[in-house]
Amino acid sequence: MGANKGKEFTVRFEPEGAALNVPEGTTVLEACRLAEIPLDAVCGGEGKCGRCKVILKGRHTVSPTPLVSADEAAAGVVLACTTVIEGDATIEVLPRARIGRHQILTKAVDEIPKPVSPWVRKEYLELPPPSLSDNLADLERLMRGLKRKMFCMPLETLSMLPHVMRAGSWKVTSTVSELEQINEISRVEPGDTTDRLLGMAVDVGTTTVVVALVDLMTGETIATASDYNRQTSRGEDVIARMMYSEDKGVTELKLLVRETINMLVSRMTGGAAKQTGRQVSKEDIVAASVAGNTVMTHFLVGLDTRNIRLEPYVPAAYHMPCLKAQEVGFEIDPAARVLLFPSRAGYVGGDVVADVLASGLHRDKGPALLIDVGTNGEIVLGGKDWLASCSCSAGPAFEGGEVSSGMRAMEGAIDKIRINEDFSTSYHVIGEVDPAGICGSGLIDLIAEMYSRGVIDRKARIQDVANDRVRQSDSGMEYIVERRAKMGPYATRDLTVTDADLQNLVRTKAAVYGACSVLLRKTGETFENLQKIFVAGGFGYHLDIGRAIAIGMFPDLPMEKYSFIGNGSLGGARLALISAKRRREVNEIFSKMTYLELSVDDEFYDEFSSAMFIPHTDLDRFPTALNMAGGRNKS
Amino acid sequence: MGANKGKEFTVRFEPEGAALNVPEGTTVLEACRLAEIPLDAVCGGEGKCGRCKVILKGRHTVSPTPLVSADEAAAGVVLACTTVIEGDATIEVLPRARIGRHQILTKAVDEIPKPVSPWVRKEYLELPPPSLSDNLADLERLMRGLKRKMFCMPLETLSMLPHVMRAGSWKVTSTVSELEQINEISRVEPGDTTDRLLGMAVDVGTTTVVVALVDLMTGETIATASDYNRQTSRGEDVIARMMYSEDKGVTELKLLVRETINMLVSRMTGGAAKQTGRQVSKEDIVAASVAGNTVMTHFLVGLDTRNIRLEPYVPAAYHMPCLKAQEVGFEIDPAARVLLFPSRAGYVGGDVVADVLASGLHRDKGPALLIDVGTNGEIVLGGKDWLASCSCSAGPAFEGGEVSSGMRAMEGAIDKIRINEDFSTSYHVIGEVDPAGICGSGLIDLIAEMYSRGVIDRKARIQDVANDRVRQSDSGMEYIVERRAKMGPYATRDLTVTDADLQNLVRTKAAVYGACSVLLRKTGETFENLQKIFVAGGFGYHLDIGRAIAIGMFPDLPMEKYSFIGNGSLGGARLALISAKRRREVNEIFSKMTYLELSVDDEFYDEFSSAMFIPHTDLDRFPTALNMAGGRNKS
Repeated sequence: MGANKGKEFTVRFEPEGAALNVPEGTTVLEACRLAEIPLDAVCGGEGKCGRCKVILKGRHTVSPTPLVSADEAAAGVVLACTTVIEGDATIEVLPRARIGRHQILTKAVDEIPKPVSPWVRKEYLELPPPSLSDNLADLERLMRGLKRKMFCMPLETLSMLPHVMRAGSWKVTSTVSELEQINEISRVEPGDTTDRLLGMAVDVGTTTVVVALVDLMTGETIATASDYNRQTSRGEDVIARMMYSEDKGVTELKLLVRETINMLVSRMTGGAAKQTGRQVSKEDIVAASVAGNTVMTHFLVGLDTRNIRLEPYVPAAYHMPCLKAQEVGFEIDPAARVLLFPSRAGYVGGDVVADVLASGLHRDKGPALLIDVGTNGEIVLGGKDWLASCSCSAGPAFEGGEVSSGMRAMEGAIDKIRINEDFSTSYHVIGEVDPAGICGSGLIDLIAEMYSRGVIDRKARIQDVANDRVRQSDSGMEYIVERRAKMGPYATRDLTVTDADLQNLVRTKAAVYGACSVLLRKTGETFENLQKIFVAGGFGYHLDIGRAIAIGMFPDLPMEKYSFIGNGSLGGARLALISAKRRREVNEIFSKMTYLELSVDDEFYDEFSSAMFIPHTDLDRFPTALNMAGGRNKS
Repeated sequence: MGANKGKEFTVRFEPEGAALNVPEGTTVLEACRLAEIPLDAVCGGEGKCGRCKVILKGRHTVSPTPLVSADEAAAGVVLACTTVIEGDATIEVLPRARIGRHQILTKAVDEIPKPVSPWVRKEYLELPPPSLSDNLADLERLMRGLKRKMFCMPLETLSMLPHVMRAGSWKVTSTVSELEQINEISRVEPGDTTDRLLGMAVDVGTTTVVVALVDLMTGETIATASDYNRQTSRGEDVIARMMYSEDKGVTELKLLVRETINMLVSRMTGGAAKQTGRQVSKEDIVAASVAGNTVMTHFLVGLDTRNIRLEPYVPAAYHMPCLKAQEVGFEIDPAARVLLFPSRAGYVGGDVVADVLASGLHRDKGPALLIDVGTNGEIVLGGKDWLASCSCSAGPAFEGGEVSSGMRAMEGAIDKIRINEDFSTSYHVIGEVDPAGICGSGLIDLIAEMYSRGVIDRKARIQDVANDRVRQSDSGMEYIVERRAKMGPYATRDLTVTDADLQNLVRTKAAVYGACSVLLRKTGETFENLQKIFVAGGFGYHLDIGRAIAIGMFPDLPMEKYSFIGNGSLGGARLALISAKRRREVNEIFSKMTYLELSVDDEFYDEFSSAMFIPHTDLDRFPTALNMAGGRNKS
């Protein structure tokens, strides 16, 4: 295949109309990446997830796959990742495969605490040139100018120092890092470069990775970029990935997540340069702040996770040593110090500490509750005097996993839905295109609606409502959310929700509510006493809190007590990057926060079981939900 | 040549009788190194210095060289470095080529300051294993055991931590480094390894390198090893080497000195293991303390020296950042911290700071004088309240350079000599073998004797004394120290000293005395007021102080004020390794010590010119010397 070097084909993208030349042997996925059209390839382009579907016109070679149906194949549908372009071609990316703007939550609290106080600053000095009467060594001349005695300097920086000082005619800019025990002149540049001081905040999620480029002088976020974590091809959740690493070693997963971050850094700086018109160099990023769950943090650094997976769930470290960018393989200034948010336990990671920081929960008296529902659910309770945390295996049901028609909150996803009296549906699709699936907020709506219309009972079992929207399938009862005929030209089947889907969804919501209940009970608190509930994570701003209460996932409290903090992990990482006060709070949160292990807790098991009903076994806990459901039933 | 792999020859060494097999293509020098018979190959084995002469019997290939005379060749003499063994052979190393015990000064002040307080210590802990009720992360479990909060840990150590803690069944030994700003758990080992805590002191000289293996628990020196600095092949003195590095880059010189040190570490640990019978692993060396002149320190770290060579003589740095062994390429524990003695100026280096530390000059009221005569001469004057330093280009005359019959203080060197009334000589040869040349102390004796016998005048010009020991040669007058006939079977010519040799020697002694005079005058001190004079460096214990005074090299003061500190550079490095108090003194010495630039000093030029006589223009300065010379003249 690689023999005919130099042969190129022209590929045109529809509807963009963009065209580019690619060498023979290029896959469709690679061509899309070259054209900067991000595709959904959650498996990392290994032909496993079946999400990167496109319609391809032109000569190609394709690997047979059960993920493309005969109907689809007839329409020219192929998997982008395993299809090789063999001639001039036209590519049309199917809506569900396209990564839309909404796909990954990059929005976070945008507070800029004053004064902006990053741990890195630049200092411009015009030094007197050496003479026989003042022939101090270069380093000591610089230190005298900086009025410093203690110092560290990377050897690479020192090696260049004599050249840099003379190249700048003794006018130089020093980059000074002061983070924890580190007190370092990380870089010296000729001339005045104090107008360029960039940092990056990173949210390393199990499924998605988000980076934000931050101007460390103003605290403003200049650009963001996000994509799937390339590790996803080695397992969908942290357990699968830990098992993979135990089998194959941690190196591969380490490199995959680093690759993901570096790809995003390139995309982000490229985007920022285009947008601002000024040069944005990766090497000008002199600080990085990273929040991720415990397992992701271990993989990023390259640590064994075996003992996190096995009882008694022991990480290698909560606090990572203060590493340099080159040590974690970040392609930014190699001497940039990387602040990794400390984890509190095997399943309450730096991302949760960052959530708390972003929410400000730890600064008020409270008590307040923070709920982060991702692949895992994490709950934090408390206030400025104390903090307690726990985690529950919520599962990926609300992220599009374990649910037949589930998908992420991206173009083509139903994010809001109502069931009409005749059991037909009205819904909203992200991007106003044909529906391709249902995302988390849509699924919560759907359960609430199905329950209030009597399509499911309190145990979330589908009822025979004597309507053709409900039917028996091979695997039990199912409800038709939308018929294939109304789903556009590429749909190959009706959009349905099954008994099995509903059990997965109810298990997730029960785990979240159960964890909240146990945490309150163990700390002697009550739902009624909660001053605030912060909602973080993947749901983000799409979620209808009322419906989440109606199905018994969130406690039945006044709506005004709820607030969304968006991507708290990214938000917290950003705050630590630009505020010395917030950095100190990171350690305060860590020190204050106790951890409750639910996996062996009988109380949790009881609470979980009670919450496996809609809204709950104990109906008194959900008065509002009952009123809502009742009201709708009556109308 | 490399085609016949596997072919081996047996080589026998005389007079040792040792034999070993070497592969075809092995040079004689390599064979000697394999047999642990160190040869004098100051040029680094490049066929340039002509010192590694051996008598080889057996088939060999040899490169033609003017360094071996026809007579020598007839006797089977070859250069070991450029001769390849091509069959079974017998090798007899010529006396002058053999590196004897006396060659490099490894002896240093052997004070062990109490308490022994290295910057590295080991702590053995039996930790409770984790359980569900105590599932702290591995690192934090260790920190709790160590009762520490702040920490740094190399990523490599952290990566191994989960394995090490479990392999040791939660019984582990931590190596903790606390040096300057560094506060680090550098290593964790399973089980109790507190009985192994080694450090190394290194003296990196321009010509020779010495390492000492130190038990950090007792402070005792276990073993030493020394050899030529392999950089010597790239230039004999620092100026030549700086010019070489400007031309070819610093990397080669960096690697050569590191190679030298690593070779010595191997030899030293191997020797220590043999001697003590216990295993001595290079990886158990967890701390290194290094003293060298400014240029050597720059090369070791890999820094550009161009600006040291050129006016106004500016080093890249006085203080090197606290580096790890792996950063300076030392093959010991990669995480071992390396303390590099700070330099005070381009030509007053860390070796001089180490000299002062070893002498203790900075602890007494003083004033005292420290004189270190190596390839460069360095002088320090002062006491606990102030210190002043300067350097003078003494030249290598007393080290065997620039003098036709000069050689280092090693086997075959005349180290003491008297001229009899008939102008014949009586002398002592190191190792009691045939004489091969004259070392520094012998040369000082010789000048004093020649002067007192009237063979030279006050300007050190050879006089026609009407004796066949003095004759006219092509290059001026020369005095025959010993006749070829009395010098054993390998001598090819008479041992002589020429007018040119004497001028070089007098220039050196004048530079040393002149520098002492200027330093005293500039600080308002006098020779008479000096409480002590410390003599450091290559001369060491061989030197006859009386003769050094007689020729006007050292000030004419009572002998009891003089003391030898031996290899002060090694001694100081050793003290810093084992004593926290002495480590603090390193920085005190650095901060206190001013530097006087003599290269542009008119006063120095005057003093130097006045000292170009024997003993001096101003005879009043050397009353004792005159009496001695007079006394001898009369006898």
